[in-house]
Amino acid sequence: MAGLVPEHFLWRMEDRVAVVKLDRPERKNPLTFASYAELRDTFRNLAYAEDVDAVVLLPNGGNFCSGGDVHDIIGPLVGLEMKELLAFTRMTGDLVKAMLNCGKPIIAAVDGVAVGAGAILAMASDIRLATPEAKTAFLFTRVGLAGCDMGACAILPRIIGQGRAAELLYTGRTMSAEEGERWGFYNRLVSADTLEAEALDLAARIASGPTFAHGITKTQLNQEWSMGLDQAIEAEAQAQAICMQTRDFERAYRAFVAKKKPVFGGD
Amino acid sequence: MAGLVPEHFLWRMEDRVAVVKLDRPERKNPLTFASYAELRDTFRNLAYAEDVDAVVLLPNGGNFCSGGDVHDIIGPLVGLEMKELLAFTRMTGDLVKAMLNCGKPIIAAVDGVAVGAGAILAMASDIRLATPEAKTAFLFTRVGLAGCDMGACAILPRIIGQGRAAELLYTGRTMSAEEGERWGFYNRLVSADTLEAEALDLAARIASGPTFAHGITKTQLNQEWSMGLDQAIEAEAQAQAICMQTRDFERAYRAFVAKKKPVFGGD
Amino acid sequence: MAGLVPEHFLWRMEDRVAVVKLDRPERKNPLTFASYAELRDTFRNLAYAEDVDAVVLLPNGGNFCSGGDVHDIIGPLVGLEMKELLAFTRMTGDLVKAMLNCGKPIIAAVDGVAVGAGAILAMASDIRLATPEAKTAFLFTRVGLAGCDMGACAILPRIIGQGRAAELLYTGRTMSAEEGERWGFYNRLVSADTLEAEALDLAARIASGPTFAHGITKTQLNQEWSMGLDQAIEAEAQAQAICMQTRDFERAYRAFVAKKKPVFGGD
Repeated sequence: MAGLVPEHFLWRMEDRVAVVKLDRPERKNPLTFASYAELRDTFRNLAYAEDVDAVVLLPNGGNFCSGGDVHDIIGPLVGLEMKELLAFTRMTGDLVKAMLNCGKPIIAAVDGVAVGAGAILAMASDIRLATPEAKTAFLFTRVGLAGCDMGACAILPRIIGQGRAAELLYTGRTMSAEEGERWGFYNRLVSADTLEAEALDLAARIASGPTFAHGITKTQLNQEWSMGLDQAIEAEAQAQAICMQTRDFERAYRAFVAKKKPVFGGD
Repeated sequence: MAGLVPEHFLWRMEDRVAVVKLDRPERKNPLTFASYAELRDTFRNLAYAEDVDAVVLLPNGGNFCSGGDVHDIIGPLVGLEMKELLAFTRMTGDLVKAMLNCGKPIIAAVDGVAVGAGAILAMASDIRLATPEAKTAFLFTRVGLAGCDMGACAILPRIIGQGRAAELLYTGRTMSAEEGERWGFYNRLVSADTLEAEALDLAARIASGPTFAHGITKTQLNQEWSMGLDQAIEAEAQAQAICMQTRDFERAYRAFVAKKKPVFGGD
Repeated sequence: MAGLVPEHFLWRMEDRVAVVKLDRPERKNPLTFASYAELRDTFRNLAYAEDVDAVVLLPNGGNFCSGGDVHDIIGPLVGLEMKELLAFTRMTGDLVKAMLNCGKPIIAAVDGVAVGAGAILAMASDIRLATPEAKTAFLFTRVGLAGCDMGACAILPRIIGQGRAAELLYTGRTMSAEEGERWGFYNRLVSADTLEAEALDLAARIASGPTFAHGITKTQLNQEWSMGLDQAIEAEAQAQAICMQTRDFERAYRAFVAKKKPVFGGD
């Protein structure tokens, strides 16, 4: 997807890592109907992209994403019929589904504001880095809505625990970066001037791994979400047996025997 | 439910917040057959109460709740037939079900002892504050029973993690207030002299929010407990679309445009 | 199982606590096909062992377990047919299933290296102690495989949270002992010279409790993994009613009334 030129966000490839950046920094990078749809379609296409092994979501102008724009999104939603409202909430949910099902690890690099759907974009990523200035809020309650937006009532409790998630969803309050790290939402805090480099470096290291197997890891993390324990273990036996027939498994073994670092091929 | 005068616990309304207090402080507020049943019925009725938007559980005399009374409950249980035993364990489980399904956020304010069914009352609440003196123990093992009491094996792991929950349930040991906060059981520690005010203030702030939407948040937190990820996201699309047809959603938008604080109406 | 003399690991009984130790300390205690199978069979038999109430997994020579041996396991796997590969991954998964279903609490005492299947042995235990020197890594990605090994994509997120688990599984990086404690993987850190005594002491205390009820606790922790909330609460009502017909329940009550410490009998 090196040639991709999206209309509503920035896209570039760094080797085999796709870098996504919302691009309205003067308004803290809100989402619009059009950018939601284009992000959804892009993540859907990523599932079939042979040239992308990981994705990084970057902030822009010191902020990650301010969520659904009040004027461009909330205004038009007020007064819509149910059919249209459901079409909208399904589109936003489909973005999360597309992120979960795209088959590549996604790293969110959060600085400044990450609120509403912006917090969801971070939540729906696999790994999250943030700066000490990151302000993350699931503030749906502030706009008169429920906390159940784009999967938050299912996913957030599994990341930070049911009690902390409940407080954030009922109050809409900001989770500080320090809380985010302490609670397991953020994997690590890094300074703003190293955030991009750290996120790209982590993505590059993951992309240099066995990427077919990474795709299976992502599939299983989703797939086993609500399985029974015995069923999950059987599912992993099958999924790992598949990985044992890849060349990457053999490459790692040969490299080990030769006391070298393995060079993976993603097959 | 302003006129409610329960026989077995204290009840008062502070504006639209219901305040519940067990009332045998000289014995650290144990539960009895009668208070279990009356609490269960009260939380069931709360699902239909139009005048209650949040619930606060307060300690009394420096303690939250010492659980099922040894003399009043455990004594009589010893020697009962299975049919009666199951009727009892179902009654206690029904109290938790009623708390989960009452449709209003519940805030537990824990001081001193919160053990056995007392710890469960805190666990089954949505948000938990505690004092540094709070001593919380799922001590069922100490009375010869299993840790699976009133939902503990399902709920506690989702709040504090599977490993910490296992230790507490197998050993029955006390979780200190500091551990409780660090592990995500307690959302915040506050001093004993501010606990009641802090809990009521938090409840009032939540009650001043979009309460219909809060009810949907509570529903979805329960409903999505064991759903698959894609199913949870579709469920949220439907649930949030419902909330987008409320007046509170429009009120929040109008207030934002007018640069005012929204005044929600719960419809 | 006092008379058990396994071929591929050390086994001893301390009163009613079974103590398991892998025994190739010079190679950091790797697993082999034979030790996998014998461990699986031993944990399966434990389900019926009347003389064992708890299990402790100990390190040997300063290390817990280095996982599947590269020469003895990974080498032979490379090039196997799918049928044999699946037989292998199912055998390893069956070891975890056997640990989960053995009916006795398992305490892992981790020192030094606990990587690959060694990290899984710790993960599949109920309670985990570690020394500050413990180095735990789910390093399957390093050998070209997916993170979904022996239940890791299902179990690890429930212990340390979805985000931290994802990072460990995608990168294969070492989790330090301090991180492990902070994230809820390790219940407690203790010094290397007290680790064995602390683990045995904890096991002895648990074994002195109501062991039939402990077995029910373990069953329910597994059983309710993917149940709905209301179903889990009903399941606990039934399971706890069973425990209320044990002598241990009555013993605890009689001891309490007599102001004595209860002596449990496991029935």
